[in-house]
Amino acid sequence: MKVEDLVRLPGSWLSVGLDTGTVISSRVRLARNVKDAAFPGWAGKDERASIYDRLAAAIRETGLLDDALYLSMERLGEVDCLVLKERQLISNELIGRHDGNGLVVSPDESIAIMINEEDHLRMQAMRPGLSLQAIWERLLAIESALESQVDFSFAPDLGYLTACPTNVGTGMRASVMMHLPALKLTEDIGPVTVGLSKMKLAVRGLLGEGTDAWGNMFQISNQTSLGESEEQIIAYIHQVVEELDRHECNARERLMQDRESLVRDYVGRAFGILTNAHLLSSKETLDLLSAIRLGIELEFVEKIGIAEINELMILTQPGHLQKIMQQVIEPEARDKVRADLVRERLSGAEF
Amino acid sequence: MKVEDLVRLPGSWLSVGLDTGTVISSRVRLARNVKDAAFPGWAGKDERASIYDRLAAAIRETGLLDDALYLSMERLGEVDCLVLKERQLISNELIGRHDGNGLVVSPDESIAIMINEEDHLRMQAMRPGLSLQAIWERLLAIESALESQVDFSFAPDLGYLTACPTNVGTGMRASVMMHLPALKLTEDIGPVTVGLSKMKLAVRGLLGEGTDAWGNMFQISNQTSLGESEEQIIAYIHQVVEELDRHECNARERLMQDRESLVRDYVGRAFGILTNAHLLSSKETLDLLSAIRLGIELEFVEKIGIAEINELMILTQPGHLQKIMQQVIEPEARDKVRADLVRERLSGAEF
Repeated sequence: MKVEDLVRLPGSWLSVGLDTGTVISSRVRLARNVKDAAFPGWAGKDERASIYDRLAAAIRETGLLDDALYLSMERLGEVDCLVLKERQLISNELIGRHDGNGLVVSPDESIAIMINEEDHLRMQAMRPGLSLQAIWERLLAIESALESQVDFSFAPDLGYLTACPTNVGTGMRASVMMHLPALKLTEDIGPVTVGLSKMKLAVRGLLGEGTDAWGNMFQISNQTSLGESEEQIIAYIHQVVEELDRHECNARERLMQDRESLVRDYVGRAFGILTNAHLLSSKETLDLLSAIRLGIELEFVEKIGIAEINELMILTQPGHLQKIMQQVIEPEARDKVRADLVRERLSGAEF
Repeated sequence: MKVEDLVRLPGSWLSVGLDTGTVISSRVRLARNVKDAAFPGWAGKDERASIYDRLAAAIRETGLLDDALYLSMERLGEVDCLVLKERQLISNELIGRHDGNGLVVSPDESIAIMINEEDHLRMQAMRPGLSLQAIWERLLAIESALESQVDFSFAPDLGYLTACPTNVGTGMRASVMMHLPALKLTEDIGPVTVGLSKMKLAVRGLLGEGTDAWGNMFQISNQTSLGESEEQIIAYIHQVVEELDRHECNARERLMQDRESLVRDYVGRAFGILTNAHLLSSKETLDLLSAIRLGIELEFVEKIGIAEINELMILTQPGHLQKIMQQVIEPEARDKVRADLVRERLSGAEF
């Protein structure tokens, strides 16, 4: 299996074929470091290479990731890196590193382990919809199997030690990606975001910081990982997400009752632009696809499903676009290729 | 004939059925005042009424406007006034006046004479395309026929006297409405406008000041009417308009050569929005219809003609919209009615 094969897959976080409503996907990430070894940022090239070999061997040894793909960052081109980033399998942090850095990813992308990112291990489990507890258990099984082979840095009073102090403790970050177009339309998302940050939860955009609200996608995650158990954090986020889901559904109902023309206009314009534009940036595409997604859920848009919209959301990203066109395409030329792809894929849809 | 009948007509300045290219329409206006009578702004109610009767009778007496409609401003409702304004038959100035003020308009709207606007007489001739000389001759025939019955205020050293000093002299303003979407797209319109103002020409929007560039429509007219003959002014504007037409055509060619995707995108988005939006303001409608007009001329848009676009440009204005719906509609509700009308009228078009 190669990066090429991943591109042909729907992308586990976008869960093609599954309509998960406002909750797109759940993700849990654990940071771990090998005891008595320097953090990757301080380690020399040889030390990193040795850690990489040791951890890759340990992962194989667990027997829990049999068909996994082992990718060494130094062998990946720029477009491959973009593709992995867009599939939420690697971080920008890892893209910048080239010696002894790598990714182990399961064929269904539900498990992705970065080696020598900021920490020696950044293990991630991901699944469509709201299922933090289930993926946490899966991740814990992998972590336990590794811990039987490798001693992790751990301080009894603090918990697991990490390169960045914000991850010390459980080393865990749980996050849920939500699609909240109605809260955005009603402008309730502002106060909601402020409220969440007071509750020690972070709200980020689709592709992390700097992509705030692209496609009306919001990632809700814990800001700290110290002082509470993993289960407590997960239960808390689960509860908040269910509440946000109710908020979003209420906002949709209110909009349809009081301002149906505005909603129809919002969806209609998105449909009209996507099916007729000849230049589309990736941000605009996500924003408009988000409106179409809402339109499908409200039954304004027909003859196309959430699955196709999910797929377009990922295929129109710069890396995927270049991968499916099998060539490096300059940003300006991408806008045309992207618009051509979107028009073709939406040609059967009706508003 | 009533205002209702006008609404059912295509609107002479928009010349439905005629594709006049970049030059939409030509208009010449003459200001005249009755000798030894106070200007309308200074005259009392009775004096204005007497002037109105005298001038209306003189117009009838010419025999040149046999089927004309004589409209008294005090009998017109708000929507009727808007309709006449949108058809470029009356000015905002006249709308504010209610005693002894009126309009005489020929059934084809090619001649419109305002009585007791800023001056006693504001006579206008209008025709599709570039035909300043022809309409000037027609207007002059009417003016001469009136002058044989009424003495006009005239000073040998200055020319015709008017309420506002800028109209003293010939009392004439000649203007041409042009559709210049490519010069707007290439942003060449800015320098062009500056250049024209240095050449003592004014550039205004579709519906006068404050509507700059709505629908990419620009009215080119003389700023002064003193020191040159009517024929000189007309010949000068004619020449400038021909030059602007060449500029616009060159800009279209350059755009199609160097940035075809941008032009297709511009037209496509306009098409997509107009055929799918559920709320449209009158400014946005004009702007997008302008892009569709360009799209028809470039053969991107099919199964609809310039005639239908011209008609929509006028029917989607607030007054016409209310008139054809036969009810007063609040501005917010208008946006929905307008979008419904546009979607219906464009339903057969293809991009």
